[in-house]
Amino acid sequence: MSTFRSIAWEGGRLVLLDQRRIPEEKTFLELETPGEVAEAIRTMAVRGAPAIGAAAAFGVVLAARRGEDLEAADARLRASRPTAVNLFWALDRMKRVWAGFAGGREELVGALEAEALKIAEEDVAANKAIGRNALPLIPDEAKILHHCNTGSLATVDYGTALGIIRIAHEAGKKVHAFLDETRPRLQGARLSAWELRELGIPHTVIADGASGHVMQKFGIDLVVVGADRIARNGDTANKIGTYNLALAARYHGVPFYVAAPTSTIDLETAAGAEIPIEERSPEELTHCGPVRVVPEGSPVYNPAFDVTPAELITAIVTEAGLAYPPFEESLPALVRKAKEERS
Amino acid sequence: MSTFRSIAWEGGRLVLLDQRRIPEEKTFLELETPGEVAEAIRTMAVRGAPAIGAAAAFGVVLAARRGEDLEAADARLRASRPTAVNLFWALDRMKRVWAGFAGGREELVGALEAEALKIAEEDVAANKAIGRNALPLIPDEAKILHHCNTGSLATVDYGTALGIIRIAHEAGKKVHAFLDETRPRLQGARLSAWELRELGIPHTVIADGASGHVMQKFGIDLVVVGADRIARNGDTANKIGTYNLALAARYHGVPFYVAAPTSTIDLETAAGAEIPIEERSPEELTHCGPVRVVPEGSPVYNPAFDVTPAELITAIVTEAGLAYPPFEESLPALVRKAKEERS
Repeated sequence: MSTFRSIAWEGGRLVLLDQRRIPEEKTFLELETPGEVAEAIRTMAVRGAPAIGAAAAFGVVLAARRGEDLEAADARLRASRPTAVNLFWALDRMKRVWAGFAGGREELVGALEAEALKIAEEDVAANKAIGRNALPLIPDEAKILHHCNTGSLATVDYGTALGIIRIAHEAGKKVHAFLDETRPRLQGARLSAWELRELGIPHTVIADGASGHVMQKFGIDLVVVGADRIARNGDTANKIGTYNLALAARYHGVPFYVAAPTSTIDLETAAGAEIPIEERSPEELTHCGPVRVVPEGSPVYNPAFDVTPAELITAIVTEAGLAYPPFEESLPALVRKAKEERS
Repeated sequence: MSTFRSIAWEGGRLVLLDQRRIPEEKTFLELETPGEVAEAIRTMAVRGAPAIGAAAAFGVVLAARRGEDLEAADARLRASRPTAVNLFWALDRMKRVWAGFAGGREELVGALEAEALKIAEEDVAANKAIGRNALPLIPDEAKILHHCNTGSLATVDYGTALGIIRIAHEAGKKVHAFLDETRPRLQGARLSAWELRELGIPHTVIADGASGHVMQKFGIDLVVVGADRIARNGDTANKIGTYNLALAARYHGVPFYVAAPTSTIDLETAAGAEIPIEERSPEELTHCGPVRVVPEGSPVYNPAFDVTPAELITAIVTEAGLAYPPFEESLPALVRKAKEERS
């Protein structure tokens, strides 16, 4: 069974699978400066909340190796994308290493490299734990609906929501994944289908607007999605279209699960309304490949994320266990537990 | 204020605006055989339930002019697309003219031409009446969400749901239309945006998955959509994605209106589950323009329509007035009224 890392640290360079070129081409970017990392995040060469966090951590290592100002590198990386909290969480961890560091430059580089590698390894371990924790939720034969990409490409490896599907498949369950294509950037069509094809997991790509119809026609057993930021009350920011999918699930009585490492839980944010929602370039909607599809002069609105209210979420699956409502109580408890297990 | 007809009957030929080329090019097809008309319907050079009905009617006229077998032409046209009932409704009207026609061929051509022109003219009049009937539903300042294309391009002229927006705008109401781009064929992005831009009506194109977020963020006053077939109980088949939009509207307490001529109401069909749902070519999902976006070997499911349950529909707006629940009572009454008004 093939696996692939979207992120690797090789010879002092950050090697990223360029996700903008999948499925046409499998090309790799070799990044040597924090500015290149920030640009790769901004342009979505690397994407997915956990993957962004790990990439940013290595961006700080690159800055230290080059003797660049770490404050400036940190600020530049923080400005690359606003919604996913893992970015800030990873940079906070790195900052706790470099801020007030007493030793020399070489020791600092070593300490930062160790922390970034730890973030990356913890992510892989967290994803596998998420998959194991979700296993009891998956029937032996399961039709699972999934949005965007949350697999190896969106994380350091394995994936969150797609990792659940993978681990259920590896555990011998008969799973079939329906994949929202996920406009405008088609991460479901391009990336999730590519991952599941490589893994030999049965799947079908559908238009985002077809999810309700698919529930009506085929019967879906559960929905699993990832998250870019989970507020203290359970409100969850995730790729645009997640909210509509949650509404279809609710109407059909289909369980709706969010899968994310505890690093995605932002206890400082009380509710979803406080989460900044990134707006991306109009060209993502006005053009399909090279072809203009929206007429010149017609405005578009292109939010990258939406917020699914906690009341539509059945449970949140993390590496430290499952959180059920009321999330105000269950989420802080899981974050504490994860910290304890790490230390 | 510009208008444009998607369908014209000129010098014994059916002239169609080729909707596959909008917005890049405004080109016209000149059709001379019923086979060409069936092919134009199948490939969606002409689309939209009322436009398909009128085009098919002229297809029968073309067959009669060429002395072709009308039974065969009728069968071929009926096989072009399965979901929109207007196709069958128009062909039934034509058949009532030609079946058992007693006169000569020239008189038959004249009678068929007259009936097809009547179908086309009635459609324009019905659309204007739909717009007038909907006026009281539209606040003086209204943010209206719309799916697919239901304008001049989808009808003979003026449009159903988009006609409502147009007539409200012409009546001096301050309307802003949010347009679902409507994957996979992007009729909202390509066609509805083009029409509203031509008409000078403020609008914004969004991804289909963004409708819930837009309701949450901007507040939407009402949703209006068209229909391809309305069952006797009010269940409505319309472009894929309509059902998800209706679910978002329900959750936000936004009124959800279906706009269609009474020719779209199929009293022979008891409920939505009986409506045949067309599946279209996988390429509509696997490719974006010339670019392959779904990996080779990954299956797709591409239904062209879905069924919105009647319980999610606030009212159905027709040329003969508004139908409110229970639709089993209000729809047959409107169909009777429309027939009486026509005769």
